[in-house]
Amino acid sequence: MSVVFHPFPIRSMTLPNRLVLPAMVTRLSGEDGLVNDDIRARYVRYAKGGVGLIVVEAMAVHSAKSGPLLRISSDEFLPGLTDLANRCHVEGPSMVVPQIIHFLKIARTGWRQTVDMLSPEEIDDIVDAYGMAALRARTAGFDGVELHMAHAYTLASFLSRLNPRRDAYGGTLENRLRLPVRVVERVRAIVGSDFPVGVRMLGEECIRNGYTVVDAGPIAVRLARAGVDYISLSAGGKFEDARHIEGEPLYPYTGYSGDRCMPGANYPDGANLYIPEAVRATVRAAGLSTPIVAAGKISTRALAERVVESGKGDLVAMARALLADPDIPRKWRDAREDRVVRCVYGNVCKALDENFKRVDCTLWPKKLGQAPLSDDQVPPAWGPSGSEIRVEYKEGRVLLRWSSATDNEALYGYELFRGVGEGELVHHASVRAASARFDDPRVLGGETYRYALVPYDLAGNRGPKSEVVRVTIPESHVEARTLVQLSAKGVDNCASITGGRG
Amino acid sequence: MSVVFHPFPIRSMTLPNRLVLPAMVTRLSGEDGLVNDDIRARYVRYAKGGVGLIVVEAMAVHSAKSGPLLRISSDEFLPGLTDLANRCHVEGPSMVVPQIIHFLKIARTGWRQTVDMLSPEEIDDIVDAYGMAALRARTAGFDGVELHMAHAYTLASFLSRLNPRRDAYGGTLENRLRLPVRVVERVRAIVGSDFPVGVRMLGEECIRNGYTVVDAGPIAVRLARAGVDYISLSAGGKFEDARHIEGEPLYPYTGYSGDRCMPGANYPDGANLYIPEAVRATVRAAGLSTPIVAAGKISTRALAERVVESGKGDLVAMARALLADPDIPRKWRDAREDRVVRCVYGNVCKALDENFKRVDCTLWPKKLGQAPLSDDQVPPAWGPSGSEIRVEYKEGRVLLRWSSATDNEALYGYELFRGVGEGELVHHASVRAASARFDDPRVLGGETYRYALVPYDLAGNRGPKSEVVRVTIPESHVEARTLVQLSAKGVDNCASITGGRG
Repeated sequence: MSVVFHPFPIRSMTLPNRLVLPAMVTRLSGEDGLVNDDIRARYVRYAKGGVGLIVVEAMAVHSAKSGPLLRISSDEFLPGLTDLANRCHVEGPSMVVPQIIHFLKIARTGWRQTVDMLSPEEIDDIVDAYGMAALRARTAGFDGVELHMAHAYTLASFLSRLNPRRDAYGGTLENRLRLPVRVVERVRAIVGSDFPVGVRMLGEECIRNGYTVVDAGPIAVRLARAGVDYISLSAGGKFEDARHIEGEPLYPYTGYSGDRCMPGANYPDGANLYIPEAVRATVRAAGLSTPIVAAGKISTRALAERVVESGKGDLVAMARALLADPDIPRKWRDAREDRVVRCVYGNVCKALDENFKRVDCTLWPKKLGQAPLSDDQVPPAWGPSGSEIRVEYKEGRVLLRWSSATDNEALYGYELFRGVGEGELVHHASVRAASARFDDPRVLGGETYRYALVPYDLAGNRGPKSEVVRVTIPESHVEARTLVQLSAKGVDNCASITGGRG
Repeated sequence: MSVVFHPFPIRSMTLPNRLVLPAMVTRLSGEDGLVNDDIRARYVRYAKGGVGLIVVEAMAVHSAKSGPLLRISSDEFLPGLTDLANRCHVEGPSMVVPQIIHFLKIARTGWRQTVDMLSPEEIDDIVDAYGMAALRARTAGFDGVELHMAHAYTLASFLSRLNPRRDAYGGTLENRLRLPVRVVERVRAIVGSDFPVGVRMLGEECIRNGYTVVDAGPIAVRLARAGVDYISLSAGGKFEDARHIEGEPLYPYTGYSGDRCMPGANYPDGANLYIPEAVRATVRAAGLSTPIVAAGKISTRALAERVVESGKGDLVAMARALLADPDIPRKWRDAREDRVVRCVYGNVCKALDENFKRVDCTLWPKKLGQAPLSDDQVPPAWGPSGSEIRVEYKEGRVLLRWSSATDNEALYGYELFRGVGEGELVHHASVRAASARFDDPRVLGGETYRYALVPYDLAGNRGPKSEVVRVTIPESHVEARTLVQLSAKGVDNCASITGGRG
C-alpha cells in the first residue's frame, strides 16, 4: 500500500493515514463562539472522507472581541466541542484536534495592537489561557491539540523577526521563542505526557525583513525540545503587508504574504515544499524525530507520495483540495483517484474569506453548502452529436465553446485538458457544469494547442473524453516598417523588418 | 577540471568559464551618463579576476532624465564604452556585454508612469531605441548585449501579471510578451545573426498577484524562440511594494520584492534556485537548448558546481560575492578557494544603493574604493599569547571578544566558525579587522556552542585557527508559579511549574 496510507502514530493517537486537513477558516460560526449546525456539518463531512487528521479551525483561548470565531476560552464551550469531537469520531478513524489561538486587538481604523504593548502580566495571562484551553480540548474528547503560532497572531508575532520588544521576549532568537516555549511547557504540564500537542508555525514569513527557514529550523528544534509532538509548517499570512480597506479591520491574508499562504493557480504545485524540506532537515540534524507537516498546493496522490518519500515532510496537509473534495483520502485509498473533484486553485474560497463571507468551494453545486456526497456509479455522457467543440483564436486568447454533457443524477463540471504541440494532454482547468465555455489566455504565438474535455458528475464519475480540437496561434509580428534611422557606425547587416500583425 | 571551468560558447562568443557577473548598480557614473574613471576601475577589476561573463551595469537606451546612470542612447557615448570594453578585454578572457535598459518616468511625489500610459508611437520608440542601443553595443566592441526585462523597468512591466493594458500589449500572456518579442526581433535584425543577445528577466515577481515560474517558463520559451541566446533569471525588485520615502523617487528594491532580489543573511544559500530549475525544465521541454543563468546567494564553488551538475542552471551568476572578491574565479580555478574573501550577505551594498550612495563592499579596506589586489603569500598570525577569546552569555546573546591578530601587509578580517553541540565548525560570520568582537543573537536555550576564529589578510591568506571556546546556553525557564486556576474538568496530571529564570 502507498506510504501515504500507512498508519502514523503521534504520541497517544494513531492517524489512519498521513493526510492532514490543516485548520481553515470557514466563517460558519456565530459571534457567540459556539459550535453550530454548519460547523458540525463541515467537519463531519471531512470525517466521512477519511482524512488522517482533522485540525478544526482556530478557536480563541481568550474572550477578546472578534468577528465570528469558535471559542474554547471557558467551560461553557465544552458541550458543543465535545459533541463535535464525538460526531467526527463516529464517522471513522480520523483523529481530530482543535487549533487554539490567541490574537491581539485590531480596529477598523487600521490600528492594531502589537506585541511590544503587552505587559508582563498580560504575557502571563496568555500562558494561562493556552494552558486552560488545551485542557478543555482534552476534556472535550479531542485526540490532541494544535497551538497556533503561525500567520499574524500573537505567538507568531513573538517568533517574528520583526518582534520589536527589547526585553527578554524580543531581540534574539531565544528571546523571540521565550513566550512560545513557555506556552508549550505550560500546555504539556497541564495536559500530561500522553496527550498529543502540535504546533502550526511559519516556515517563512514572506514579508520584508521577515524570517525564513534559516530561523524556522532552529525555532522548530526548540519547540520540539520543549515538548511538541508535530510541527505543521505554513507560510506568510501577515499583517505587515495586508491591504487596508477603509472601515474594515486589517486582514492578514490580503497582501503578498497572503498569496504565499494559499498559493493560487499562478503558483506551481507544491510551491512551498522547500520550506518543510529545509526545516525537517534541521530538525533531523538535531537528532529529533518530530514529524513535520508539509503544505501548500498539494493535490495529487503522486505529489503527496513524493513529499513523504523524498523526505520533504512526514505528513501531507491539504486545505483547499479537501474543501473541494473531502473524499480525496477515501478515493485515493480505493485507487479511485480518477473520481477526485480537483481544486483548481482559483482561490474563490480565499476571496470569500477576505470579504468576510462564508467560505465555500465555488465548485460545489450552488445552494448545497457543502461538497456533494453520492454513491452514483453512472458516468455522464455526451449528446448524440458528441462534444461539438468550437475553437477560435482571438486577441491573444483561445475561445472554446461546446455542447453540454448530461448525467443521470447531475452533471458537476468539465475538466479541460490541454496539450502543447504534440505533447501529452494535461489537466489545464475545470469548468462548472452550468458553463460550456472556456477562454484560455495562456497561449503563445507560433505554438499549436490541443484541447479535450472530460465531463464529471457529483460522485466524480468521469464521462468519455471528448474529441480533441487543435488551434495554432499566429506569430506576433511587428507592423511593416523600414528602418531609416540607422545612423550609428558599423551597420552591415541590418534588415528591413516586415510582416503583418498577428 | 570542474564543470564550472569548461569554456562555454554562446553564439559568437566563448566564455572562459560558467561564472557570470550579473548587472549590478554601482552609482559610480555621473549625471552625464559617460564612462568615468571609477566605472573603468570597477569593471577592469572584475576582468582581472577572470569571471566568464561581465554584464556591465544597466545603461539607458533613451535620453530620459534619471539619477546617475550610464547611457548608450546616442553615439556620443561610444568612445567611452569602446574604451571600457577594450580595457576589460586586455585584462584577460572575460566576455563583456552591457545591459541595456528602458525605464519609465518617476517623480519624487511617489507618482510613476505605468505602461498603460504609453501611446502606440511611444511603444514604437522603445523598439527603435533598443535596436539602436544594441547596435551601439556591437559597434563599441562588446561581445554581446543583454536586454533588461527584469525588476521594475519598462519591459518587465509589460511582462508583468499586473500589466494593466487592455489592448494588444496586455491582458494575455502573448499580449504581455508582444513588446519584449518586438524588441528581441528588432535587436536581432539589427545586430545580425552572429551577435549574442541575452535577456535578464524575472523568474518570479514576488509581489501580490505577480507572476511565478508558471508564467516565466513560457515567457522564456517565447523569448528564446524569438532569438535570444541566453536567459538570466532574477526575482523581485518591483515598484509595487517599494517603500516611499518622502521627497525621494520610489526605488524598487526597498520592499519585500527587493529582499527576494538580493536575499540577505536571513535567507538560505541559493534561496532562488528553484526558479532557474523550473524555468530551465520548461525551456528544455520545449526542445530549446538556450542557456539559463541562475542567481541568488550563490557563493561557494561546491554550490556553483551543484547548480550546473543538477541542471538548475547552465551558468552561475554571483553579484555580491564578486563585489566582495572579484578574484573568486581565479582563486577557484587555482584550487585556492581557501583564499576567497567571503560575502556575508549583510546587504550593506544593498542599503547603500537604497540610500542613493556609491555601492562599495563593506568588507573592503576603507578608502580603497575597490577590492584589494595583493600577491602577498604570508598569512596573518596570532600574538604570542594566542587568540585569547573571551566568551560570555548574556540576555539571549553570546558575546565574543578576542585579542587582535597581525599581518605583514595588512590584516583584512576574521572568519568566525561555529559548531552546535559537538557538530562540525562551520563559517558563521565574518568580522572586520578593526573589530575584535562579535555578538551572536542566534543561539538557543539548552544548547552548547563552540566558536573559533581564522584571521585573513588582503590576499585572502588564512592564519592559523584560534583556540576553540565553548558556551552552554541556559534553558529558558518560566518564573516559579503554582497553577491555581485549574477549574476545568479532567485534570489528573497537571503539575506545578517551577524553575529559575534562565
